[in-house]
Amino acid sequence: MTLEAIRYRSGSLQILNQLLLPHETVFDEIRSVRDGYEAIKTMKVRGAPAIAIVGCLSLAVELRAGAGGDDLVSFIRDSLCHLTSARPTAVNMGRAARELMEFTENESMEKNAEQLRDSVIGWIEDMLERDVNDNKKIGNYGAQHILSGVPRDSVTILTHCNTGSLATAGYGTALGVVRSLHSLGRLKRLYCTETRPYNQGARLTAYEAVAEGFPATLITDSMAALAMREKGITAVVVGADRVVANGDTANKVGTYQLAIAAKHHGVPFYVAAPSTSCDLSLESGRDIVIEERPPEELTSINGVPVAAPGINVWNPAFDVTPHQLITGGIITELGVFLPSELQAALTGRLTAL
Amino acid sequence: MTLEAIRYRSGSLQILNQLLLPHETVFDEIRSVRDGYEAIKTMKVRGAPAIAIVGCLSLAVELRAGAGGDDLVSFIRDSLCHLTSARPTAVNMGRAARELMEFTENESMEKNAEQLRDSVIGWIEDMLERDVNDNKKIGNYGAQHILSGVPRDSVTILTHCNTGSLATAGYGTALGVVRSLHSLGRLKRLYCTETRPYNQGARLTAYEAVAEGFPATLITDSMAALAMREKGITAVVVGADRVVANGDTANKVGTYQLAIAAKHHGVPFYVAAPSTSCDLSLESGRDIVIEERPPEELTSINGVPVAAPGINVWNPAFDVTPHQLITGGIITELGVFLPSELQAALTGRLTAL
Repeated sequence: MTLEAIRYRSGSLQILNQLLLPHETVFDEIRSVRDGYEAIKTMKVRGAPAIAIVGCLSLAVELRAGAGGDDLVSFIRDSLCHLTSARPTAVNMGRAARELMEFTENESMEKNAEQLRDSVIGWIEDMLERDVNDNKKIGNYGAQHILSGVPRDSVTILTHCNTGSLATAGYGTALGVVRSLHSLGRLKRLYCTETRPYNQGARLTAYEAVAEGFPATLITDSMAALAMREKGITAVVVGADRVVANGDTANKVGTYQLAIAAKHHGVPFYVAAPSTSCDLSLESGRDIVIEERPPEELTSINGVPVAAPGINVWNPAFDVTPHQLITGGIITELGVFLPSELQAALTGRLTAL
Repeated sequence: MTLEAIRYRSGSLQILNQLLLPHETVFDEIRSVRDGYEAIKTMKVRGAPAIAIVGCLSLAVELRAGAGGDDLVSFIRDSLCHLTSARPTAVNMGRAARELMEFTENESMEKNAEQLRDSVIGWIEDMLERDVNDNKKIGNYGAQHILSGVPRDSVTILTHCNTGSLATAGYGTALGVVRSLHSLGRLKRLYCTETRPYNQGARLTAYEAVAEGFPATLITDSMAALAMREKGITAVVVGADRVVANGDTANKVGTYQLAIAAKHHGVPFYVAAPSTSCDLSLESGRDIVIEERPPEELTSINGVPVAAPGINVWNPAFDVTPHQLITGGIITELGVFLPSELQAALTGRLTAL
């Protein structure tokens, strides 16, 4: 089975409440934009692609129920503005809001309210389907690329953080590659790092692995190099917060250290990211500002204090892996590319082999 | 000030109860071998050198109070046997017990009970003093070696796990080097990793740093490579569970990954270890068996479940860093040596420069 964290049927939306994971599996009904906002704000849903999808689907549900009446354009604009404010740093929601608003304004010129309502709902449903399909393509391209190096064997993959059904519209990016390998019967084992300080690996990736029946093993972040030496890791596959023009990749902190360890052991290192996560407006990773998060993420765990009181903390949320360390390639829905090929591939000047 | 985790005055012993750290600072009185056994068994004291010292000192306290009567040899033998059984894998206690028993038997041939009592107590008190002095030498040799590369600057050190006053007879090994640098006024900052899964860095090293007033910053294990790139780390200094003849070093899991990251950034990587932690009977690190510990260390923290139920866990307690990655040197009480020089240095065929 595939874990379905976002359950959408026309007019009805349920989301897996991630605040209760991994200990309780509870689906919450999202009936309105207000519910969608609240789910994003309180982090019942997280992961930039998932936030955008849940936000837009909450609008589709309310539109289907007849909200907005005749002044549909204003209703949509206000709703999107409200949804975007729930977590302003989640870029995907902002981008989706801009695109949907532009679409709405164009459509409104030639359609009546009922036709407009249907086409906006259609646009949002397409977005869900497109995201899942893009992730499936990423999964398949990545799996084929990894397997091309080991024609007959099953493979052992190491991943970091959570990039699965819980972070995307469905299927996942890096974890989508793992899912494809598993469905081909070629996944020997997945090693997932616990991913300190927020434990997305221990809480979410491990949850998905158990739910899906992947053969999977949890390790601390500091055991990755030892796993590469002792456990025959075939490839490391991670997701991305942002890939810039030269292929430098910002992702969850710890990714850079993993890439160095992979290089040392000659293990191919892959980044899995939809083209929407690629930002060609920045030339290199030096242009990416590293966000720092509160010290409490390190000094306490689930509210229980762990560290010595009074200690200073450095808590960067992500790091930048230079393109030279991305030795396997960048896996997109268009194919797998070397960092040096990315720009040409995304601008249509290069197609996947 | 120097944090004194083991307070011994002739006939009186108090130890800092590490079970209550970092939140409460409580010293427990150790009045007997029974108290010593209990403190070791329940992990009020931990760290192989500290266990041996506390065990032997608990015997000295009871001897000073007159225990054993005339059949002193039997009393000492039974006591050491009991103390060694508290944590059988702590090699230092076993070695100290063998040495002290041999000493006791030799002395008993020419001394009466009262003379024997005094000389055994003297041997134990010497052991405490020798261990602390060895650590001070390690601290000074290490500090001088690191500073020789940066004649005028203050330095930034990254360390892993806990190797300070809380793990040794006093002063510490790797943290002793940091202590020396701080007392010379040359420590700009210490970065300590939290050291998953048992959090010795967050709980104990951070506690010592706050208590001693070191400028110190806590990071997750996965941030070390980023700290090397962004924070100007001068050197990485770690302790050792065991250093074998070719310089390969077993230490807390994560050390290997740190050494790879240090190599990648051209940062010197040092191991600080007394000669008693060097085991020339093993030729290379391949001969060291890696102990695995219970999965609960990863799946829950302070008894609070964190990871998804049902996930498989790999939890090796330590890893082996090959000597090629120990680029700074091995810091002992005899001087700082390259891994290739270690054997000659320890067997007296080479002296420190």
